[in-house]
Amino acid sequence: MNQIIQELTRVNGQASQILAITDRGLCYGDGLFETIKVCSNKPLLWDAHFSRLELGCKRLGIPFGGLKDRFDADLKALLPLNSHDTAVLKLTVTRGSGPRGYFPSKALRPTTISSLTAATDFSRKAAEGVILRWCDTPLSINPLLAGIKHLNRLEQVLARGEWENTDIAEGLMRDPDGCLIEGTMSNLFWCSAGVLYTPDIDRCGVAGVMRATLLALALKHQIPVVVGRFMPDVLNEADEVFICNSLIDIWPVIRLDGLTWEIGPVTGQLQTLLKEENSV
Amino acid sequence: MNQIIQELTRVNGQASQILAITDRGLCYGDGLFETIKVCSNKPLLWDAHFSRLELGCKRLGIPFGGLKDRFDADLKALLPLNSHDTAVLKLTVTRGSGPRGYFPSKALRPTTISSLTAATDFSRKAAEGVILRWCDTPLSINPLLAGIKHLNRLEQVLARGEWENTDIAEGLMRDPDGCLIEGTMSNLFWCSAGVLYTPDIDRCGVAGVMRATLLALALKHQIPVVVGRFMPDVLNEADEVFICNSLIDIWPVIRLDGLTWEIGPVTGQLQTLLKEENSV
Repeated sequence: MNQIIQELTRVNGQASQILAITDRGLCYGDGLFETIKVCSNKPLLWDAHFSRLELGCKRLGIPFGGLKDRFDADLKALLPLNSHDTAVLKLTVTRGSGPRGYFPSKALRPTTISSLTAATDFSRKAAEGVILRWCDTPLSINPLLAGIKHLNRLEQVLARGEWENTDIAEGLMRDPDGCLIEGTMSNLFWCSAGVLYTPDIDRCGVAGVMRATLLALALKHQIPVVVGRFMPDVLNEADEVFICNSLIDIWPVIRLDGLTWEIGPVTGQLQTLLKEENSV
Repeated sequence: MNQIIQELTRVNGQASQILAITDRGLCYGDGLFETIKVCSNKPLLWDAHFSRLELGCKRLGIPFGGLKDRFDADLKALLPLNSHDTAVLKLTVTRGSGPRGYFPSKALRPTTISSLTAATDFSRKAAEGVILRWCDTPLSINPLLAGIKHLNRLEQVLARGEWENTDIAEGLMRDPDGCLIEGTMSNLFWCSAGVLYTPDIDRCGVAGVMRATLLALALKHQIPVVVGRFMPDVLNEADEVFICNSLIDIWPVIRLDGLTWEIGPVTGQLQTLLKEENSV
């Protein structure tokens, strides 16, 4: 079911849909965001999302103190207005509004934005699998920005702009050395001979909260895991492939250019384990 | 003289200082900007700034049609309100406001933002020279984003955050291979044995409008120019060093870590040629 929720948004703790044009989030992409699935009015993986947000703030030198309280208060204000089963909570932090110039003054007060919007129902894609393609747009390497979910997302925008065919659910991106990294909005996993693989995101890419959740689940359930640097041809030997993020959970991949896969047992097992985890 | 101008801003052709939080400029840094010096109510290097903006729009797939007219109209509205000699006109274009997700829909209407603010007087730095330092933050390599002045500026923000000492006017940035590229907010030139050098910005960095202006002036006045890939140690042999951008014009560099320079004849000649050019 596709749900329509009137958009509920708060800026700096007040009901609002607008921002100063001097905000550094707009001027320089100087901030971070999280998109969190809300089921039965419970934000899923809340602590993991906040840990990543805190790491991002540390990396960018944005004061994190007080931010959690501000978002907690937003959540308290927004959730009672949400009468639907599944929604998407997007949290954004910027360094704040300031004068022109790159200097990240410590005197600035961070801007917080929370919005609760309708969730799309992805159950069919999760059950039937999706088709992927390759993107030409590379992910550039910068360890300072790797892993965190910052607002500099032009590479993802350009990559996602490479196709309009709605049959294709996601595009895979590589670094300038040709190494496999992730999808435009998802992390990538594959399985070969019972071992689960996913690319390292220490040089570029986003350290997805769902990726971390699945890695932890796999380890807990004795599925061997290898995280490393891989070239795209490893997928030729893969028995199963899937992508994941906090909103889509797990989408089995059934086709990528000339390669095809069945939805495999490890993918199915992780989907089941994740459902159990979320229902706790 | 430091001038104070009340900030004059327009968003989508109307007097405004606010923007929708769903604007992709904020969400993904999905847009471009130009900062233009306005002297005696004349925007300097207007055509060159617009050419770069147009190139940026093409690169990002943002429709450029109509944007020049919209900014022309903003300018007509703002300039009569400006009674000061020197001001800074900042123009921003984003892909517009849209739903969540990276897909750059062609249906979106670009957002335009124009603001006219006080210009800082840099004549002392131009006359006496400035002190530079090295930044550790690298500029990552992505030819798709190189040259254009997009809104993904976290690398510049992090680099500029490396120092607070106000005696240091600018920091120099290198690419991941260690090649010399530019300052956080300026392009770099140096002179050795009468030849003018500046780094190529085909893999990363901003193709500054002032950089292009100075390259053209040098060629016109028979100053030999070499644009290429250089390691930082080339500065050990430099006779003169300077940085430039559209707002600061030319700042001679007198010190960088252990290296010191006098303000040299080529720097002085280019400062004079630029003044003549601007007064036409």
